[in-house]
Amino acid sequence: MEACVAILCTGNEILDGRVEDSNSRLLSSTFDELGVHTAHILACRDDITSIRESIAFLLARAPILIISGGLGPTSDDLTREAVSEFLGKPLYLDQGALENLKALYQRRKRIFDISNTKQAQFPEGSKILENPVGTAAGFHCQAGGKHILVVPGVPHELKRMTADHLLPFLQKFFSRTQIPQTAHLHIFGRPESKVGELVERGGVPPGISISYRAHYPEIIVKFSADRNNSALAPFVEQVRQRIGADFIFSELSGHTFDRALHELLIAKQKTVAVAESCTGGMLGALLAANGGASAYFQGGAITYSNDAKSLLLNVPPQLIANRGAVSHEVACSMAENARRVFSSDVAVSITGIAGPGGGSAEKPVGTFFIGFSSAQGTQAFHCFASASRTMIRTFASYTALDIVRRHLLGYDLRPTDIIGNPQSP
Amino acid sequence: MEACVAILCTGNEILDGRVEDSNSRLLSSTFDELGVHTAHILACRDDITSIRESIAFLLARAPILIISGGLGPTSDDLTREAVSEFLGKPLYLDQGALENLKALYQRRKRIFDISNTKQAQFPEGSKILENPVGTAAGFHCQAGGKHILVVPGVPHELKRMTADHLLPFLQKFFSRTQIPQTAHLHIFGRPESKVGELVERGGVPPGISISYRAHYPEIIVKFSADRNNSALAPFVEQVRQRIGADFIFSELSGHTFDRALHELLIAKQKTVAVAESCTGGMLGALLAANGGASAYFQGGAITYSNDAKSLLLNVPPQLIANRGAVSHEVACSMAENARRVFSSDVAVSITGIAGPGGGSAEKPVGTFFIGFSSAQGTQAFHCFASASRTMIRTFASYTALDIVRRHLLGYDLRPTDIIGNPQSP
Repeated sequence: MEACVAILCTGNEILDGRVEDSNSRLLSSTFDELGVHTAHILACRDDITSIRESIAFLLARAPILIISGGLGPTSDDLTREAVSEFLGKPLYLDQGALENLKALYQRRKRIFDISNTKQAQFPEGSKILENPVGTAAGFHCQAGGKHILVVPGVPHELKRMTADHLLPFLQKFFSRTQIPQTAHLHIFGRPESKVGELVERGGVPPGISISYRAHYPEIIVKFSADRNNSALAPFVEQVRQRIGADFIFSELSGHTFDRALHELLIAKQKTVAVAESCTGGMLGALLAANGGASAYFQGGAITYSNDAKSLLLNVPPQLIANRGAVSHEVACSMAENARRVFSSDVAVSITGIAGPGGGSAEKPVGTFFIGFSSAQGTQAFHCFASASRTMIRTFASYTALDIVRRHLLGYDLRPTDIIGNPQSP
Repeated sequence: MEACVAILCTGNEILDGRVEDSNSRLLSSTFDELGVHTAHILACRDDITSIRESIAFLLARAPILIISGGLGPTSDDLTREAVSEFLGKPLYLDQGALENLKALYQRRKRIFDISNTKQAQFPEGSKILENPVGTAAGFHCQAGGKHILVVPGVPHELKRMTADHLLPFLQKFFSRTQIPQTAHLHIFGRPESKVGELVERGGVPPGISISYRAHYPEIIVKFSADRNNSALAPFVEQVRQRIGADFIFSELSGHTFDRALHELLIAKQKTVAVAESCTGGMLGALLAANGGASAYFQGGAITYSNDAKSLLLNVPPQLIANRGAVSHEVACSMAENARRVFSSDVAVSITGIAGPGGGSAEKPVGTFFIGFSSAQGTQAFHCFASASRTMIRTFASYTALDIVRRHLLGYDLRPTDIIGNPQSP
C-alpha cells in the first residue's frame, strides 16, 4: 500500500477565505518530511452531513484520515457527532476524560460549564488521544480496517498532537521501506517550460516521480522514488548537468533564494550595496530579509527620480539626458557609484520600466538594465520580462541578486536564457 | 437554490505542504464578497483518477464547480484530460486557440514547442474562457445541468480570469436577490482583538453578519445583510465612529493600503522621500508598488550600516555613538536629511531592531522609531511590535506610511493604540 493519508479540516472561516488553511499545510508538510503523501486535502463547512460525506469520500481513497477541528465546546463544533454518525457508533461520556477536563478548567481558573461536558464524549470503541496543551482531547477510531485520527484545530494544540500522536502512529503504520527518497533542485534563471523540457528530455526512469513548483520567480523541482530505487541519484545528476549547476541555487528542501544568497555572502565575507530605480527598494529589502544581514549589506540608494540619480549617485545629468534613465550607461554609473559611496566589495543596480505606463517601441514595458560593479570592473546587462508590474519588479530584483550570486561562485554572470544579450554602449 | 460553489485545486505542491493554497483562498474570499458561499474546497494530486473522482464528489454537492490549476504544458498538467474523462467527451484541438497561443509565444519571443499544443485542447462542447495574460486559456462546460469552470492556477492569471469570467458568470447565475448588500472597512492601526470589540460593542442588529480578515497588517471587516435589511447602513456608521475614521484607510472592497496611499498622494500633489535602516528598502518598495509612483516618489536612502547613515544622510557619527542607531534622534536626523537631500515635501524614516538578534533590555527586538519631516518640522515616534522579523519589518513600513497618510489628511499623526508614546530626546 502506498504511504498516503487524507486530511479533512472543518471550519466556515476557511471556506469564506477569511483565514488560510494553515493546519492542512502544517500537517501535509510534516507528513511529507516523513515521506508520507497526502492524497487529498478537503475543507468543509461546520455541518454534520457535510463532514460525514467528506469522511466517506476521503476514507475510500486513503488508509488513514486525519481530521482537524470541530472538537470545541460550541454549537458549531460537530466533528465528533459526524464521526459517530459515519461509524454508526454512538457517543459515550468518558469518565476519565471528564475528570481531566474538570481538573484543567480548575487549574486555568475557568468555570466548567455543562456544555464543556461535550469535550469528554467520544464514539464508542475510540482510543482517546490525550491533549496536554488544551481542553479538546483527540481520538482514534477504525472503520473497515482504515483509520480515522481526530485532533483539535487550534494551531499550537494541533502541533503538539501531531508530534505526540500522529507522527508516531504514521511511523509505525508505514514501514520504513514505504517512505520514499527525495531530491530537490531550486532553480532561478530558466523559464518553467524550459526546466520541464530539460528535466524530462530523454525520459524519466521508471519509479521516479517529478513535481514542479513555481514560487515566482523561483522554480523548485522535486524528485521522489522508492527507497530501493537506485536510479534516482544518477538521474538527478543528469538533470543537474542539463539544467546547469549555475542555475541551481539550492538543493535543500524549503531553502529560499534570499536565504541561500544570505548564507553565501556570509560564507564569502563580501559586502554589497545597491542602487535601485523601478524596484524602489525591493532589491534592498530582499538583501535585508534575513537576520544577520548587517554582515554584508551596507545599504543602497533608491533613486526613483532622475534628480535623485544625480544627487545621490553622481550620475551625470547629461548621461541621463543623452542615453535615457533606462540605459546600459546609467545602470553602470549607478552600480559603480553605489560601490564607491558605500565602499562595498560589490554593488548592483537596477533601472527599468516596470509599467504599466512609460514604455516605448525601443524600450517596451518590462525592459530593465542590471549594472554590476566589483574590483574587476563594471558592466551592465540588458534584460526583459513580459509580465505585470509586480512581477517585473520582482524578477528584476532576483536577476540582480543572481548576478551577485554568480559573481561569488565564479560563474558566468550572464545566463543567456534569462537576461538577453548585454548591450554595448 | 443556495448561492454556493465548490472549488477544486490541483497540485502536488499543495498536498505536500510546500505552498499555501492561496488560489482557493483568493477564489473563496472573492466569491464571499459577492455573497456566494463556498461549500467545499478540495485539493488533489496531479493524477487523472484523483481529479476525476474529486470532480464527481464536488459536483454532487454544488451547482457550480471551479477548478484551478493543471492547464500548463507539462506532463503533470492533467486537468483537461480529467474533465474530458469525467464528461465522457474527448479533447479536440481548437484552431483559434492554437493561433492565439502561437502569436503569444511569438510576442514573448519564446519558442513554440509541440508540447504547447496541449494548451489549445478542450473537451468537446466547452466554451473557451480567454486568458489575456497567459498561455493557458480556461474553459466552461456543463454536466447534467451543472457547471464546471476551469481556470489556470498561476496566481496573476487566476486573478484576471476571476474578474473576466468567473465573477460575471456567478453574478448572472445567481439572481440579484440572492446576493446580499455588503460594506467594508479597511483598518490599519488597531489590534485585531480591539477591532472586534469595537465592532460588536452594544450588539449586532439581527440579519447582519460580520466577518474579519487580517491581511497583515491590514484588517478588513466585512458586513453583509439581505438586500431589504435597512439596519446595515446605520450600524456601519456607528462602527465607523467607534473605530475612528482616521484608522479606516479605505471602504472599497479589495483596496490595499499602498494603493489607497498612492491615490491620496497623487490627489494631494505631495512628494515623498524615505530613509530606511532595518526595513532595507521595503518602505520604498511599497511606495513604488503602483504604476505612476513617479508623480510623488522621489527616492530614498537605504542606510543599513551606521556608516551609510552618516555618508548618505549626514547623520552625525557622534549622535549615533551617543544615542544609538535605533533612537529618536537618529530617526529625526534621517527623516530631516532625506527631505533635504531629495527636496521632497515630506520624508519618513525607519530605524529599528527587526531581530532575531540585536535586542537589549532597553531596546528589545521589535523596537523601532519612525521619523517624520515636513515643512512644519520634524518629529519621531517610538514604536514596538512583538512579532517575527518579517512581520516587524512589514509593520514598521506600514506605520511609516500611515504617518504620511495621516499628515496628508490632517489627522493626529500618533494613533496611541499602535505606536506608543513619542519619546522625548
